[in-house]
Amino acid sequence: MELLPDKSSLRDWIASHRHLPRVLVPTMGALHRGHTSLFDRAREEASRLGGEVVATIFVNPTQFGPNEDFTAYPRPLEADLAKCREHGVDAVFAPGVGDMYADDRSITIAENRLSTTLCGASRPGHFDGVCTVVAKLFLLTQPGAAIFGEKDFQQLAVIRRLVRDLDFPVDIIGAPTVREEDGLALSSRNVYLTPGQRAQAQVLQRSLAKTARGIAEGRLETPSAAKEAFLGEFAAATLARLDYFEMVDAWTLQRLDEFGDSEPRLLAAAFFGKTRLIDNVGLS
Amino acid sequence: MELLPDKSSLRDWIASHRHLPRVLVPTMGALHRGHTSLFDRAREEASRLGGEVVATIFVNPTQFGPNEDFTAYPRPLEADLAKCREHGVDAVFAPGVGDMYADDRSITIAENRLSTTLCGASRPGHFDGVCTVVAKLFLLTQPGAAIFGEKDFQQLAVIRRLVRDLDFPVDIIGAPTVREEDGLALSSRNVYLTPGQRAQAQVLQRSLAKTARGIAEGRLETPSAAKEAFLGEFAAATLARLDYFEMVDAWTLQRLDEFGDSEPRLLAAAFFGKTRLIDNVGLS
Repeated sequence: MELLPDKSSLRDWIASHRHLPRVLVPTMGALHRGHTSLFDRAREEASRLGGEVVATIFVNPTQFGPNEDFTAYPRPLEADLAKCREHGVDAVFAPGVGDMYADDRSITIAENRLSTTLCGASRPGHFDGVCTVVAKLFLLTQPGAAIFGEKDFQQLAVIRRLVRDLDFPVDIIGAPTVREEDGLALSSRNVYLTPGQRAQAQVLQRSLAKTARGIAEGRLETPSAAKEAFLGEFAAATLARLDYFEMVDAWTLQRLDEFGDSEPRLLAAAFFGKTRLIDNVGLS
Repeated sequence: MELLPDKSSLRDWIASHRHLPRVLVPTMGALHRGHTSLFDRAREEASRLGGEVVATIFVNPTQFGPNEDFTAYPRPLEADLAKCREHGVDAVFAPGVGDMYADDRSITIAENRLSTTLCGASRPGHFDGVCTVVAKLFLLTQPGAAIFGEKDFQQLAVIRRLVRDLDFPVDIIGAPTVREEDGLALSSRNVYLTPGQRAQAQVLQRSLAKTARGIAEGRLETPSAAKEAFLGEFAAATLARLDYFEMVDAWTLQRLDEFGDSEPRLLAAAFFGKTRLIDNVGLS
């Protein structure tokens, strides 16, 4: 596995592998089983194409808000590289901030529709930062396909929009959320939960899944009936404060007034103490 | 020469020429000798690289302001294609607006520094429209190099910034302005000039060139002395109203307080009646 610490070494590596298709997995490091499942999915796709897997590890300052944890964000590079190696990654691009962003940078990519709801409502500028860095990573690594986790479903939808609207020649593959045995979605934030919060955290996923099943089986015929059912289930998490529960179209993220022919996606965010967890499910 | 009327035919063409380097010339059509000089420059570059020349003809709605002439903009496609053919273009991509932009598009690329001065000051959103369409054309045609005229110098500087800040793997080549015998820069707008205005229009270029010579030869030592000299020369154009005259750094477009080590560029815009002409010169 190659470690590429800057754009220059990446460009050299690309030049010497020019005609091999690449599958990209962009990450911010601090890798857990959620990430390594994306590497496995990328490996599968790369083998199908006869190509290679490139992972990127870059804690992107432009997607953190002023009160968010950019400097405190964990950066266990050696452990991350070991996980990349174990999961069949061919090259890791891990640039510094000064290499990625000129001090006088003045170009930003903005998404002005899907980004304004859900998590975007409380994180202004976050998805613009994501779009800009993902565009740069696509242009630097020139992949034929890129893997993003469904765990960050709004991010996945925004990236699909970025690719559609700017005509990036990249297939976006969404990979299913990896979960603990009780259903809790893997997240580096789960370690912040107290034992009592941890015991209740799975209620988020259970409520989403049960509501989705009710819709799929026709028992919950309208979004308002589904919301009522979700809130009834979620009440079991007595230590939680719900941030949002929304039923949206999986592609446009527009809120659904009726289920109709859409592909519904159910998303929720909730605070356990100061720890904010997100999760989402489809109907299948 | 191939005419590619939509993204789908372009993608097929690219796929069948995958490993050939491409040199791109983006245009809005209504081609004159200024444009065909760009094709000639592209042909030269493509021959050097063993590649092909792709021209695009697309009147981009997102770079026109609400009171600008998008619908009236000339679209002489057959004549344009003949000129492309005569000047060694291998393929012309000429898509429709609906093919380029989804109705619910929500991604925009914004440049927030170089775009705010000069022509950008009176055309809000113009350069964001330019950046967005040029990014799309780069991603669709995947060129190794692209040619832009120095005539639109601010556009050239903004595109260089787009490429630098998003890491597009595209060499940007600026091509010199083509001029009438008396020095007037070629522009499709020149036909709107009355004979009296036309006779005076060359004062714009003459004043710029004479001022640049004064700076290069050390007679005009400061920007304020240079500005005074320019205004003195330009006063000969009694039918004109000066819009702006600026001396800026050629790369950042920041106004110069002193000449120092910078690479100065002199830019001006002037109205002759309702017709607005722009021109610019360097020091060499």
